[in-house]
Amino acid sequence: MKLIMMLPVLMIAWQTSAAEKPKSTKPISSELLAASQASDWRPLDLENTLYMDLANGRVIIELAPDFAPQHVANIKALAREKYWDGLAVVRVQDGYVVQWADPNSEKADLKRKIKTAKETLPAEFDRVLPPTVPFKKLKDKDVYAAETGFSNGFAAGRDPKTKKAWLLHCYGSVGAGRDVAADSGGGSELYAVIGHSPRHLDRNTTVVGRVVQGVEFLSSLPRGHGALGFYEKPEQNVAIKSIKLASDVPEKERVQLEVLRTDTPLFEKLIEAKRNRAEDWFHFQAGHVEACNVTVPVRKKP
Amino acid sequence: MKLIMMLPVLMIAWQTSAAEKPKSTKPISSELLAASQASDWRPLDLENTLYMDLANGRVIIELAPDFAPQHVANIKALAREKYWDGLAVVRVQDGYVVQWADPNSEKADLKRKIKTAKETLPAEFDRVLPPTVPFKKLKDKDVYAAETGFSNGFAAGRDPKTKKAWLLHCYGSVGAGRDVAADSGGGSELYAVIGHSPRHLDRNTTVVGRVVQGVEFLSSLPRGHGALGFYEKPEQNVAIKSIKLASDVPEKERVQLEVLRTDTPLFEKLIEAKRNRAEDWFHFQAGHVEACNVTVPVRKKP
Repeated sequence: MKLIMMLPVLMIAWQTSAAEKPKSTKPISSELLAASQASDWRPLDLENTLYMDLANGRVIIELAPDFAPQHVANIKALAREKYWDGLAVVRVQDGYVVQWADPNSEKADLKRKIKTAKETLPAEFDRVLPPTVPFKKLKDKDVYAAETGFSNGFAAGRDPKTKKAWLLHCYGSVGAGRDVAADSGGGSELYAVIGHSPRHLDRNTTVVGRVVQGVEFLSSLPRGHGALGFYEKPEQNVAIKSIKLASDVPEKERVQLEVLRTDTPLFEKLIEAKRNRAEDWFHFQAGHVEACNVTVPVRKKP
Repeated sequence: MKLIMMLPVLMIAWQTSAAEKPKSTKPISSELLAASQASDWRPLDLENTLYMDLANGRVIIELAPDFAPQHVANIKALAREKYWDGLAVVRVQDGYVVQWADPNSEKADLKRKIKTAKETLPAEFDRVLPPTVPFKKLKDKDVYAAETGFSNGFAAGRDPKTKKAWLLHCYGSVGAGRDVAADSGGGSELYAVIGHSPRHLDRNTTVVGRVVQGVEFLSSLPRGHGALGFYEKPEQNVAIKSIKLASDVPEKERVQLEVLRTDTPLFEKLIEAKRNRAEDWFHFQAGHVEACNVTVPVRKKP
């Protein structure tokens, strides 16, 4: 079996036998993570974590109140009023996005009423981050943004002229759908990226967070064949059992996850290990890395 | 239903009602394609097209002999000796790759023998293209390559110093797996990209082509949960009915596809329409485009 990319166990065996090449002393991602300290990780904030339960598994989404405070507050209100429970994934466009919504949103008499949350909100496409919010700048250039970097585990862009920052559309990013008007979204219809990062969407929608576990339960769903990947028949819709805030779930039903901190020396080394891959398998060093190719690691709390 | 991105029919309705914003005169991708001429398209070369038939559908792969002549010749020999028929997809790593191979490749007594093709080949990670092969350079910068562009429908990189070019790892790109040694691949184990473009693999494997139709039959497969996304149990492997060259299939069983030419004024306009999206839905113009976000259109022959 040829491997394309390797995990720690295989790496060790292969490095031992690869006597023809001097062993690299440069850091390797898997070794860096294996040697990480407890202080390199932070627990997910249960107040900003969604559990989206489908028949095939649980999708866990970390919300980003630093970037979209109003949308995140509204999404939390929607979860608490059980807005999505019994609604569905209605769109799976290959290489692009999975979207969930009220299948009856166009039918005034059948659509689910929003009770405590707001129907729509002003756009939060970008914003000046509060001074307490870190932004770890990547030295690599980017095709779309003047600057990219990481903020509390999220890949972000920043414009040094306006000082505004925004979350990037990377694989697994979650955003709020909207109609043509910028303020026509509000978080009741959300989407997750399941293909190559559609960076042209940056600053065109409000990105509210990212999937930190279980994105496969969205990305492996059958594709929709209507326009834009919408399912054509109601029976194709994939039911959402519930979307709940982790803090509202009994402790024993919670998943204890930790996210690698992005403001540490370890994270700097990890980025360097992705720019120049010291694994024996790599013969050519890219020398660069794109923010969306630095997936911030998530693990079960040891 | 909020849409994130629109198709022609919806666009027209919305543009009419969006009276507050003057209608753009800039080109829109869907309108450009709708107004294309027959001469803007080329048929797939049946001699360089693979039909990979799975139980759930047909994956169609266009091979790129300009970039990997030896690998493409070997893959054609493998298809003609029916090497893959009855073998399987053995690996589905979420956000990364789907890989197909002989599930018994590690068992000397059970593994399928290669008859007419070669077991391994020298790497074709990059090469100086023959002068007859076009390379339409993108003006946008790239994170990984000094230059990117398009060659006969394939997204490619190029180094102006060495004059060497290579195919990019974009969504749907197909490459040859290998072990640690550069010349340990040969095309018998292939993979397709099903996530954010893993551009750090560029020039580390031989990319042999791209999926032009049916990538969803790979990207929606259940994920593997062994190391690197390999399936853990043999019964999880997804059987390959057959992989055949289109030219070896009876004419009535062929799929008549055309690929948009990438050496035309229309393609230039299409790239511009992706750099600056004139659809009313877009409020922020990226002003740039990444090669892997310009998916070269494919259609059924009208």
